[in-house]
Amino acid sequence: MIRIFTDSAEARRTVLRRRLFEDVTVAPPVQASLDRMFGAGTTPAQAVERIIGDVRSEGDQALLRYSREIEGVVLADLVVSRAEIDAAYVELDPALIEALRLAAGEIEHFHRKQQRQSWVDWNQEGALGQIVVPLQRIGVYAPGGTAPLPSSLLMAAIPARVAGVDEIVVCSPPQRATGQISPLVLVAADIAGVQTIYKLGGAQAIAAMAYGTATVRPVDKIVGPGNIFVVLAKRAVYGVVDIEALPGPTETLVIADEAADPRLAAADLLAQAEHDTLASAILLTSSQQLAEAVQAEVGRQIEELSRADIAAQALAGQGGIVVVPTIEAAIKLANEYAPEHLCLLVQDPWRYVGLVRNAGGIFLGERSFEVLGDYVAGPSHIMPTGGTARYASPVNVDDFRKIISLVALNDRALARVGPAAARLAAAEGLTAHEAAVQQRLAPDGDS
Amino acid sequence: MIRIFTDSAEARRTVLRRRLFEDVTVAPPVQASLDRMFGAGTTPAQAVERIIGDVRSEGDQALLRYSREIEGVVLADLVVSRAEIDAAYVELDPALIEALRLAAGEIEHFHRKQQRQSWVDWNQEGALGQIVVPLQRIGVYAPGGTAPLPSSLLMAAIPARVAGVDEIVVCSPPQRATGQISPLVLVAADIAGVQTIYKLGGAQAIAAMAYGTATVRPVDKIVGPGNIFVVLAKRAVYGVVDIEALPGPTETLVIADEAADPRLAAADLLAQAEHDTLASAILLTSSQQLAEAVQAEVGRQIEELSRADIAAQALAGQGGIVVVPTIEAAIKLANEYAPEHLCLLVQDPWRYVGLVRNAGGIFLGERSFEVLGDYVAGPSHIMPTGGTARYASPVNVDDFRKIISLVALNDRALARVGPAAARLAAAEGLTAHEAAVQQRLAPDGDS
Repeated sequence: MIRIFTDSAEARRTVLRRRLFEDVTVAPPVQASLDRMFGAGTTPAQAVERIIGDVRSEGDQALLRYSREIEGVVLADLVVSRAEIDAAYVELDPALIEALRLAAGEIEHFHRKQQRQSWVDWNQEGALGQIVVPLQRIGVYAPGGTAPLPSSLLMAAIPARVAGVDEIVVCSPPQRATGQISPLVLVAADIAGVQTIYKLGGAQAIAAMAYGTATVRPVDKIVGPGNIFVVLAKRAVYGVVDIEALPGPTETLVIADEAADPRLAAADLLAQAEHDTLASAILLTSSQQLAEAVQAEVGRQIEELSRADIAAQALAGQGGIVVVPTIEAAIKLANEYAPEHLCLLVQDPWRYVGLVRNAGGIFLGERSFEVLGDYVAGPSHIMPTGGTARYASPVNVDDFRKIISLVALNDRALARVGPAAARLAAAEGLTAHEAAVQQRLAPDGDS
Repeated sequence: MIRIFTDSAEARRTVLRRRLFEDVTVAPPVQASLDRMFGAGTTPAQAVERIIGDVRSEGDQALLRYSREIEGVVLADLVVSRAEIDAAYVELDPALIEALRLAAGEIEHFHRKQQRQSWVDWNQEGALGQIVVPLQRIGVYAPGGTAPLPSSLLMAAIPARVAGVDEIVVCSPPQRATGQISPLVLVAADIAGVQTIYKLGGAQAIAAMAYGTATVRPVDKIVGPGNIFVVLAKRAVYGVVDIEALPGPTETLVIADEAADPRLAAADLLAQAEHDTLASAILLTSSQQLAEAVQAEVGRQIEELSRADIAAQALAGQGGIVVVPTIEAAIKLANEYAPEHLCLLVQDPWRYVGLVRNAGGIFLGERSFEVLGDYVAGPSHIMPTGGTARYASPVNVDDFRKIISLVALNDRALARVGPAAARLAAAEGLTAHEAAVQQRLAPDGDS
């Protein structure tokens, strides 16, 4: 069920090989719907382009039509009412509401520690600085339908609220059976301090938040995971609005030594694998004995899972156990792979932290497992996937703040640096630039 | 030559209206080349897709071919040699080299003040933190050909170097006449501490830096302005690598009151307009008299410019003077427009700083004009264009750093927050997640 690789080079070519974003294809039933709705052979990207075009030209009408055709829901109103939110509170187990509140509190507490202040540096030449300003309007996409993820909503909306943004809106697809968004998502949105919740999913939700319609006011940035159509739509609207990433299937790289508990390592791999048939769960270990024990444990524990089929498919497709000579060698492979989650089930995890260059998050020791991070540890669980941890960060407060440069120089600065500016302008062939300097340096020479 | 609008509502609908990124088209001669090279009716985006595909499949051969076909240059070697860099130093006026060094020094000095440290917070439940790590490999695109911009190279590469990235490479197109990159660009790259310079321009340069070829090692992030093909290529490779933005034509919004010097306001508008026929130079003023004086000055000063034709076309296309009731009203319009550069030629500019929500940079007073910012003030002149200042920042050190979340919790934390994690996992239907928690909470209950 989960293979063991004893050759790192082979693992590099297979289980640790990165597939590029655009090489992803959709499952046959999804392709069949595309063919039916948009014509035979329509690619997901083409379908998304059509949907976005329709939302831009037809506005709310297109939103209602696609909700009917794709989500199978006939909507009277795109906006969730206060009464619907109140009803969601009544419907949920109070202990679950308490768990959402606890998670929200931990996420907020963590992100409040992320300091970043405006600075202005005054000296004899005037002042220079960077002003830090929150973004104004944020849109959070919260996956819904059969597998609502209220935790992802908290992980996106709370850092935005901590940043001080003016307004946070959420789009989440309603459930086919009820025409309503899951009460879990509604309560999570309310706890997170979201102002408006729209019953909207898929590419049409992204288009609405980017371009706006009569009902949906456009936002400045769209954040959150989603299916391939949501991701392609985010890619298509990037530049009209900002996005935090093009999130792909989730992935974990567990590094374990001979002292690790094979039951816990197996449990953590399975927790990863049950997300999605495309999820990656990989173990790197310096112990052949542990490799075999984890393999056996995975086989034993998977029997008890409700999503065993999904987990089995993920492990067969992208899972693997790689036996490496040392933990240092494992860290080296991890840096090349740049995992979303890097879990160190080793005896002295802190000694390896300084060696990690590429990961979304590092989880140290058996008590700091990824599932805690998924819900309650504090850092956002929206982390860079697909190897983008080479350059990207988990969602954090700075996703919702920007810098404005401040230049307030005086005559003294002008006298010192102005002539160099004029010389560089001349070298670049920009005579109006040069003139703008010269008129200040010699104000009467040009009158 | 530059129109005066006395009705803000009309100005909002015309000169202050934002065009969306994808609505941009290319000039007829450019379209003719596309038709010739790629077949009739090929759009710029389709041409870019073809070029990227060819670079991915053919590598260096495609780079050499497109350099020949597009740049008109037959290259023996893609990499600039040390001897070529040394020759560039000999070729340049020493005063110009000194000006480049001064600019580099100011940019470095400014960005060294941008602090961001890793933090780890230990308490009785263990530790949480954010580790700040520089990116490993950065690619800078430096426009070349007939209008090399060494200043843009400094503005991208120096913040990257301050961030501590391992390696910075530059791609810049060689000049058609000489087959060489402008000595200005070579010396700027050397001063900025760039490791490798490739004689490569256009979409093929972006593809090479994103995917790699035999000669060009792939980078983690590509930064810098370029023509429409460069920008479309950056959009196409986003997700494979990071990019800082999809830079559009440059733009300035000057706000002036009755005390402003019309000559300087006109000079600043012209400096903006000479960049590009698509550049925007807009003045908002509370004084009808100043509006007319600036209009006259623009007409007078433009006569003396070497790029008068470009400036005139830019002013006719996107320029304008808008008379507004108050400076506060002007700031409100500026926040809606979200200009790249916001220049405050008003009596007490500091009083308006706190009102600015959307701008790339604010320039306070007549001594802090945009041209200083273009070369020597310190902040990067690569600022968000096209209204993206709503959500984006000027290039800064954080473009070249990322966060890795750190989770190192202990049993005490597990006991407090673990049950909530298990409950949320169960609510999301993720039983393997729940099991990963339960095995830690009651390790013997599951054996």
